[in-house]
Amino acid sequence: MHIPHLYIQRATSGSPRSGCGLTRTSRHENYTLSVRPPVYLNEVILLVISEFAWQKFIIFYDSEYDIRGIQDFLDKASQQGMDVALQKVENNINRMISTMFATMRLEEMNRYRDTLRRAILFLSPQTAKAFVSQVVDSNLVAFDCHWIFINEELSDGDVQELVRRSIGRLTIIRQTFPLSLNTTHRCFRGKHRISPSLCDPKDPYKNNMEITNLYIYDTVVLLANAFHKKLEDRKWHSMASLTCIRKSSKPWQGGHSMLDTIRKGGVNGMTGFLQFKENGGNPNVQFEILGTNYGEDLGRGIRKVSDLLLVNIRQLKIVSF
Amino acid sequence: MHIPHLYIQRATSGSPRSGCGLTRTSRHENYTLSVRPPVYLNEVILLVISEFAWQKFIIFYDSEYDIRGIQDFLDKASQQGMDVALQKVENNINRMISTMFATMRLEEMNRYRDTLRRAILFLSPQTAKAFVSQVVDSNLVAFDCHWIFINEELSDGDVQELVRRSIGRLTIIRQTFPLSLNTTHRCFRGKHRISPSLCDPKDPYKNNMEITNLYIYDTVVLLANAFHKKLEDRKWHSMASLTCIRKSSKPWQGGHSMLDTIRKGGVNGMTGFLQFKENGGNPNVQFEILGTNYGEDLGRGIRKVSDLLLVNIRQLKIVSF
Repeated sequence: MHIPHLYIQRATSGSPRSGCGLTRTSRHENYTLSVRPPVYLNEVILLVISEFAWQKFIIFYDSEYDIRGIQDFLDKASQQGMDVALQKVENNINRMISTMFATMRLEEMNRYRDTLRRAILFLSPQTAKAFVSQVVDSNLVAFDCHWIFINEELSDGDVQELVRRSIGRLTIIRQTFPLSLNTTHRCFRGKHRISPSLCDPKDPYKNNMEITNLYIYDTVVLLANAFHKKLEDRKWHSMASLTCIRKSSKPWQGGHSMLDTIRKGGVNGMTGFLQFKENGGNPNVQFEILGTNYGEDLGRGIRKVSDLLLVNIRQLKIVSF
Repeated sequence: MHIPHLYIQRATSGSPRSGCGLTRTSRHENYTLSVRPPVYLNEVILLVISEFAWQKFIIFYDSEYDIRGIQDFLDKASQQGMDVALQKVENNINRMISTMFATMRLEEMNRYRDTLRRAILFLSPQTAKAFVSQVVDSNLVAFDCHWIFINEELSDGDVQELVRRSIGRLTIIRQTFPLSLNTTHRCFRGKHRISPSLCDPKDPYKNNMEITNLYIYDTVVLLANAFHKKLEDRKWHSMASLTCIRKSSKPWQGGHSMLDTIRKGGVNGMTGFLQFKENGGNPNVQFEILGTNYGEDLGRGIRKVSDLLLVNIRQLKIVSF
C-alpha cells in the first residue's frame, strides 16, 4: 500500500517491555517507523550493577514478563562470573511466600535470606509494591538489603510508595524525558497554542501520563507537521491517488515522499526530539537512576508516618543511549 | 465438530521441547488428546543436580530453545540457594568464543573457566557436539569438569559422539521406552503380523527413529484398534452423520463415544503403554540417565582413536513419572 505506519509499542499490564521487536520483512518495502525506542533494559541494568560491583543477586520477574528479554544481560553477567538466581513472582504472592516457609528447611531459608540481600525486580509497579510489602512483613529482608527496581514506566506516586514500603537501600531506574529545549515558547507547537498542562514538564498532569500517551501525542504533532509541509509542496504527488479499496493493488504514489518527510521529524515534543534512524527506530532514550541510602537509622514506623522522608531519595544519574 | 484429535508435539530443529503446552479452551468441549507426554525436563534435571549436590553451575541453551521452559527449575534452584549463570550459545560458536577471548580480562576469564566446570546443556545434539568440540579445543575446560546434557531426543550415535568429543565427566539424560511387555508375540499388533524391525527394541532401525515417529506409529495402531472396536459395536452411532462440510454446524453424534474408546487406549506400543489421563495427556514417560566417570586417566588422543571406550559409559538410573 505504501502508506506510512507509525507504531507505538505498549507494555503488557505494567510489566517491563521485553523487546521482542518488530521483524522487518523487507527493508525497501517497509513503511513502518517505531516511535517508541527499542528496549534498553539489558544495557542500563548491566551498567548499574557494574557500578555497584554486584557479584551475586536474584532476579524477580512477574508472570507477564518474558524473560527472553534479558538474555543479553544474562550472557554478559555469566561472562563476568556473576552468580544469578531467577524466580517468578506468582500472582498470589501471599501463597508463594507461605509455600516457601512451609517447604524450605532452615539452612535453605538462611541461604535464601542471604540471596535476597541483592535483588533486581522486573515487575509491574503494582506487583512490585505488593511484593515488597509481603517480603518486608515476612522478615525475609533486613536493613542491609539493596534492591533495584527497573521499569520504563513508573510514576512519581509509585516511586513514593516503593520507598515507603521498602527497608534497606532502594535504587529505581525509569525512563525520563528531557526538558523542552525551546523554553521561551513552551506552549506553542507549530503555530498553535496548546494547553500549558500538556507542555509544562513540571506540571503534575504530565507526570501522570503514560509513556505510550506521550509518544502518541508527539506522533500526532509530527504527522500534522508532515502533512502541513507536504500540502504546501506543489511538486508532491498528492493524496488523489490514495485509495483504501482492497482490490486496487496500485501503491500510493505519494507514500514514499511522505515517509521521508515524517522520518526527518524535527518535532521537539514531550518525549524529547523525535527522529528516526535508517532502520526506522527512534534513537533518543534516557533513563534516570534514583536512589535512597541504606535505611539503618530509620525506623519503619517513622517512614510510614511521613512522606517528607522522600527527600531521602535523590537522582543519581541520567543515562542516554 | 466433535471429532477426536490426536496431537503429537514436535521439537523445533532438535532443541529440547519447551513445554509451552496446549491451552485447553473448555474441558467439556475438548476433543484433543496429547499423545506425547508433557515436558518433564524441569523435574528430571532438578533430580539429577540434587543427587550430584551441585550448588553452582552454568546453563547453556541454543537460540531455538525458549528459556521460559525452565522457569520452574530456576525457581526451585533459587529457593535452594543455587548460583546459576545462563548463556545463549550463538549459531556461530567459533565467533562467540573468539569474542569472549578478545573482550574478557584475565581475571574474568579465570572466573569463567571456573564456572564452566559444571554446566548443563539445553542444546540440540548438533549444536552440543559442535559446542563441546570448540570449548575443548579452546582449553576452556579441563579434565575436572562435569557437564550434563539433557534432551528427550538423542540417538545412540549422538551419545557416542558426545562422549568421544568431551573431556572430564559427562552425564546424559534422554527419554527412553520400556521393552515390550508381550515378549512372546513381539511382532504382532492386534491380529496383524508387522515388520520385526518395527517391534524389536534391540533393532538398530528402531533406535534411529525419531521420538515423534514412534508416537505417530502408536497413534495409528491405537486409532485402528478403536475403529475396529466401534465398527463391531452395533449400538454405536456410526459415521453416517459425520460430514466435513463447513456449513453444517451439527456435531458428529458418534464423536464422544469414539473419544472415550480412544482414551481408554490399551495399546502397548513402541512408546510403552499408551493411555490418557482425564486432562487428555499421556502419563507414561521415562528417562534414562547415562554417565561416564571423570576422564583423568584417559588421554584425548586415545579416545579419538577408539570407539571401544564407549564401554566407559553406563546407565546410572531410569526415572519414571
